[in-house]
Amino acid sequence: MKPINVLIVGAGAIGGFYGALLAKAGAEVSVVCRSEFDLIKQSGYLIESRDLGDWHFMPHLVLRHPEDYPEQADYVVLCTKAIDVSENLELIRPAVSNNSAIVFIQNGVETEQAFIDAFPGNEIISGLAFICCNRIGPGQIAHLAYGRLALGSLTNTISPKAKQLGALFNAAGIECRITDDIIGARWQKCVWNAPFNPLSVLSGGLATQDILSTQDPLVRSIMQEVVAIASACGHPLPEDIIECNIANTRTMPPYKTSMLLDYEQGRPMETEAILGNTIRAARREDVPSPHLETLYALMKLRELKVAQSSNTH
Amino acid sequence: MKPINVLIVGAGAIGGFYGALLAKAGAEVSVVCRSEFDLIKQSGYLIESRDLGDWHFMPHLVLRHPEDYPEQADYVVLCTKAIDVSENLELIRPAVSNNSAIVFIQNGVETEQAFIDAFPGNEIISGLAFICCNRIGPGQIAHLAYGRLALGSLTNTISPKAKQLGALFNAAGIECRITDDIIGARWQKCVWNAPFNPLSVLSGGLATQDILSTQDPLVRSIMQEVVAIASACGHPLPEDIIECNIANTRTMPPYKTSMLLDYEQGRPMETEAILGNTIRAARREDVPSPHLETLYALMKLRELKVAQSSNTH
Repeated sequence: MKPINVLIVGAGAIGGFYGALLAKAGAEVSVVCRSEFDLIKQSGYLIESRDLGDWHFMPHLVLRHPEDYPEQADYVVLCTKAIDVSENLELIRPAVSNNSAIVFIQNGVETEQAFIDAFPGNEIISGLAFICCNRIGPGQIAHLAYGRLALGSLTNTISPKAKQLGALFNAAGIECRITDDIIGARWQKCVWNAPFNPLSVLSGGLATQDILSTQDPLVRSIMQEVVAIASACGHPLPEDIIECNIANTRTMPPYKTSMLLDYEQGRPMETEAILGNTIRAARREDVPSPHLETLYALMKLRELKVAQSSNTH
Repeated sequence: MKPINVLIVGAGAIGGFYGALLAKAGAEVSVVCRSEFDLIKQSGYLIESRDLGDWHFMPHLVLRHPEDYPEQADYVVLCTKAIDVSENLELIRPAVSNNSAIVFIQNGVETEQAFIDAFPGNEIISGLAFICCNRIGPGQIAHLAYGRLALGSLTNTISPKAKQLGALFNAAGIECRITDDIIGARWQKCVWNAPFNPLSVLSGGLATQDILSTQDPLVRSIMQEVVAIASACGHPLPEDIIECNIANTRTMPPYKTSMLLDYEQGRPMETEAILGNTIRAARREDVPSPHLETLYALMKLRELKVAQSSNTH
């Protein structure tokens, strides 16, 4: 039987970890990785997982660019940061063939339509990762906690391809749920991301625990705005979603958000995917969102300051 | 004729400059200054003013503590940062005698009652300075722009003491207006301070020009909340106040706010006097202020982060 071909684009901590799981389950997993190409080509990845143990992942092919992929990918899995969607679309285009399903495991809301418009003949699968994992050294990925995935096809209501991919993840020991409301699931994740990501950066680097223990009402106000926007967009969220998020965050270990890690390391932040798209949805649906508007404006100011500082260095 | 006795408490840039003006006009001006006591006692202040020229100000007495003041002050002028009102009240108490008028030249709103309660037998004069001036070296104060003062007695509707003080400032070349609505004037100043001070800190250090040129709608939303709060507190502000503030800020030279200077130099910030008191007035008067609430919560998070960082150093 022909193996399942997977091409991972953006093989950092998230892409490397989920790629390693698919390989473990028997798929033929290749990766596009630019910054550590030589090292990964030679030695692959070392995965250190608290829950799943340690193992070595040697990709089938290690490529510098998607256009170097010589095969027909069953799945092109995009795991880059959600910084610039149109750039992402052009990045993967050369590796997408007629039968490829395009999977994006990324943060953010309202990025779906761009994928559907760019690849009208392909199945598009939207994925969300609930995971703490970090790159801890060259080719070294630590899986610290969680790991659950949600996948949903945007184009097919019954999707054998999404099911097949989910089965591989499950076989590798990670819970992967196939949902028919992946857009609602994105809004659910946004309920957490929209407050904690920007607050961690704007506070100057506080952990989630410190934010929540001192500014609980602000966190709730922001979450309420996201819930109202999601509802206006046709995705009413569970009634207890804010209480659940607050309770879960209280019991999480003190955690640096991904946006804070990006900020501290001078990388671009997912401001547009998480806040910008949320705000644009709010304006379109006429939902007042003063807390989110304030955070978004402040993040844009912060980005402007970063740009000024890097210009003068 | 007995000279007018003035004791300046908090003789940094603002206190030193306004003290120097009163001395120039003939008052006997003493200063309490702690950090540069030896230097000021020996050499006084050098004032370098773009508008008024340079001059030397040798205080009548230089003291470490208000309790060391041996005379009956006609005016005790408090020019410290508005960080902790009750601390300020206890600081000046030993120098206040029966006939002393207490003048506070400080930022912030709703600090009046604490002075009135603490010194029920004394005249209390509230003062606002519209000025750019900085300490540029030991004992050296640069007066860069503006300088206008507004004074208003909180206890006497017709106040000879406020008039006398205003006349001294005017004689020294600085416009000093006596107003019967100094509380309204404080709210007016807050219309500018409430957005630009925190935004300059939370953006990571942007100048007013950059904030305004990229986030004009946020600045206006914050200003509108301050206007609504002031009005609910019985101080309706002029209709064009937001347009005037925006227009003036556009033509100002790029300017680092006082809160940003404090933040950069690791000093406490006037978060409570400018934002905290405004928010508390909004809650009391039931005026929704989501933008201000967000800024205030973020400033508290930022202060928490500063405290954490200084604990670990």
